[in-house]
Amino acid sequence: MNRERYDINEIKELQKSINLMDPVDLAEIFEILSPYEIAIRIKLLNKDLLADTFALLSRSKKVDIIKTLSRESIMELIKELDEDELVDTLQELPANMVGKLMNHFIEEGRRPIINELLGYPDESVGSIMSVNFMSAKISRSIKEILDKVVNSDLDANKLEQIWITDNSLKLKGFVYLADLLRNIEQNIESILHPINKTVSAYDDQEIVAKLAFRYDLSEIPVVDSENRLIGTVPAEWAIDVMVDEYNEDISNIHGITDIEDDSYMEVSNLKIAKNRITWLIICLITATMTGFIIKRYESTLATSVVLAAYIPMLMDSGGNAGSQASTTVIRALYIGEVDYHTILKVMLKELKIGFYVGIALVFINILRIFFMDSVSTQVMLTVSITLLITVMISKVIGGMLPLIADKFKIDPTVMAGPIITTIVDTVALLIYFEVASKLINL
Amino acid sequence: MNRERYDINEIKELQKSINLMDPVDLAEIFEILSPYEIAIRIKLLNKDLLADTFALLSRSKKVDIIKTLSRESIMELIKELDEDELVDTLQELPANMVGKLMNHFIEEGRRPIINELLGYPDESVGSIMSVNFMSAKISRSIKEILDKVVNSDLDANKLEQIWITDNSLKLKGFVYLADLLRNIEQNIESILHPINKTVSAYDDQEIVAKLAFRYDLSEIPVVDSENRLIGTVPAEWAIDVMVDEYNEDISNIHGITDIEDDSYMEVSNLKIAKNRITWLIICLITATMTGFIIKRYESTLATSVVLAAYIPMLMDSGGNAGSQASTTVIRALYIGEVDYHTILKVMLKELKIGFYVGIALVFINILRIFFMDSVSTQVMLTVSITLLITVMISKVIGGMLPLIADKFKIDPTVMAGPIITTIVDTVALLIYFEVASKLINL
Repeated sequence: MNRERYDINEIKELQKSINLMDPVDLAEIFEILSPYEIAIRIKLLNKDLLADTFALLSRSKKVDIIKTLSRESIMELIKELDEDELVDTLQELPANMVGKLMNHFIEEGRRPIINELLGYPDESVGSIMSVNFMSAKISRSIKEILDKVVNSDLDANKLEQIWITDNSLKLKGFVYLADLLRNIEQNIESILHPINKTVSAYDDQEIVAKLAFRYDLSEIPVVDSENRLIGTVPAEWAIDVMVDEYNEDISNIHGITDIEDDSYMEVSNLKIAKNRITWLIICLITATMTGFIIKRYESTLATSVVLAAYIPMLMDSGGNAGSQASTTVIRALYIGEVDYHTILKVMLKELKIGFYVGIALVFINILRIFFMDSVSTQVMLTVSITLLITVMISKVIGGMLPLIADKFKIDPTVMAGPIITTIVDTVALLIYFEVASKLINL
Repeated sequence: MNRERYDINEIKELQKSINLMDPVDLAEIFEILSPYEIAIRIKLLNKDLLADTFALLSRSKKVDIIKTLSRESIMELIKELDEDELVDTLQELPANMVGKLMNHFIEEGRRPIINELLGYPDESVGSIMSVNFMSAKISRSIKEILDKVVNSDLDANKLEQIWITDNSLKLKGFVYLADLLRNIEQNIESILHPINKTVSAYDDQEIVAKLAFRYDLSEIPVVDSENRLIGTVPAEWAIDVMVDEYNEDISNIHGITDIEDDSYMEVSNLKIAKNRITWLIICLITATMTGFIIKRYESTLATSVVLAAYIPMLMDSGGNAGSQASTTVIRALYIGEVDYHTILKVMLKELKIGFYVGIALVFINILRIFFMDSVSTQVMLTVSITLLITVMISKVIGGMLPLIADKFKIDPTVMAGPIITTIVDTVALLIYFEVASKLINL
């Protein structure tokens, strides 16, 4: 793929083909091209496509490219970058480079907004919003607004919705460009879509994703404390947020800390091991509980060693039953159907579900023992009773924990993973041996 | 909230306030209002807002409302519904109602497209796409296209992008409405955004979500086999698909079948129990394996009952280590970083990660045993060796299974849940007792 030289016809071909490409694909190719090949493409790409591609590159490629570009090219590139792209880039670059860019390359007029955007916390709405939008006062005529659109140098995709404010600049709603064209003699109010869903720049970015999901919004407005528009988040960015949150949830459930966009194959094994070890250690330590319980009942177990054969089955059934409950409750929590106030209702509901599920499992388990194992009636009874109680209690705990976590501002998905398994294991064993010592060692 | 009567001023107030609401919120309120209150609101709502609200109602509310509406009102309502909303509605209604609507209420001109949309499989792109879009041949002048926009009766949000085809109607790209306005004297080509990402109506809807995510597209074009545009999917709908897929993944991981949008609190406990029981039964049956193994080594266990105390810890460590690996690999699989061809690389990588993690766990476990338990060196050695091997093998199995599942077109997330636990449990126990019988019962 990496070549040494091109003749003039090849250059023309290359220019045509790369300018038809998507910046996402271009950025991927840039990552593996030689510096020479990249330099050629930088010369051949349209300015705005180059800027979009640059914004998507990895941190190290960005640094490489800035180092090779001339002063003029850097200025041009920066001019083409949207504010949000510029801020993302600055956040990645080494401090000395950032200082240089801020002081010498970024137009003075843009510096205040860049500084403001740099100030928003990680994962906040402010850190992902776009500040390129068009707004107009409601007192303007449709013709005036159309003139403003025609003379605007915003990207065309930022001009689909024009935001409408009252005369003190408070956000009232938006109008579609197409409606302006089709109602040129009307007043704004007749085509205004009122807005009552806004977010603050300091809100968690997850809120944008939830809003976009619930109301199928294509642009979510970001306002300040005075309800003045300061930015927007398009729905397609909300998808990125959803995917991040999704990865975070999945990772919480499986106890992997430090979720990044890092490539799995490229990250060192030692680093992955480090990310995974914390949870495994926590589980190992908490497993001390189950060990204690088994040792405490060693004499019970010694008289009836066969009891050990059912420990894995009981623990797994309890663990699975509990995670099922917590998964469902987390989902209901996410869409706002349940919360800490309904915890008793949820627990009661899960208790009943646990009863149905438990009875079915006990029935199947008795059949299984009858046909495949040969154990005493006492053992069978012990296993059956424990299974029923364990499943019921696991469901209740699984339903309860996410709500408690949420109440204390802990991410409830953390509860769906190893924690619930450990708790349920402990409970299952306690019940098992208590029932066994009553029924078997009379 | 439900009232008996309104005076004229209250009616005016109500009309004003409900017409400022979002259809999502309105639909939610409709679900709990009395038939009288709903009837009033149906009369007061703007036609298009009423249609949007209706499209979001539950199946039973839709049936109720259609039953109470006059012939004329039904016709008006149906006229306002977009094709995709109409199709969704028809899919929910009872067959006799569908027949009646199709034959007597839907305008004849719309029937062919409705029938076509009804034919797309569940979860396909065709089943979620919108057929309301504007396209124009590339030979048209910008002025002609603008005239078309001005005279169009499409919703304004469908006119933000105008799709451009060649003269044989094959999709070439799109232009933004704002660019048409700003370049009225130019030709189309100068403002055309070429398109090379399209989907087929028969593709799985997940593909749309992935495209929207990867390329940050705000509209994804759907084409037929001749590359002619037949529909579009906006990014905000792609979010809904993501959430569906997310729920499906989470449910697979936790073994809950039959994932629907049903409300958790409203669905009967018995139905929830039914959805959850299948996986629990599968796990119960497969747990027969672990039971068998323990029974087979009953004599080993009888000579050293304390061995039982470490079974839960070993099983949990193996299970957690395995799910961590499968979660990471599923994510890498999702973004296309690994696939079945790289399975050996993945296995080797996980083996190494497992080694690091395992060594760390063994070290901590020895400390734990040393300070808290008092067991023989043989038992400690047995536990340590088993822990290391189990973690390593679990990582390898966890990394391998999703890739194998994907190869056989099984959803890999199915592998991240109970299946891996069962396999890993079995492996852990086999290793444990084999090592124990070698080291302890010499």
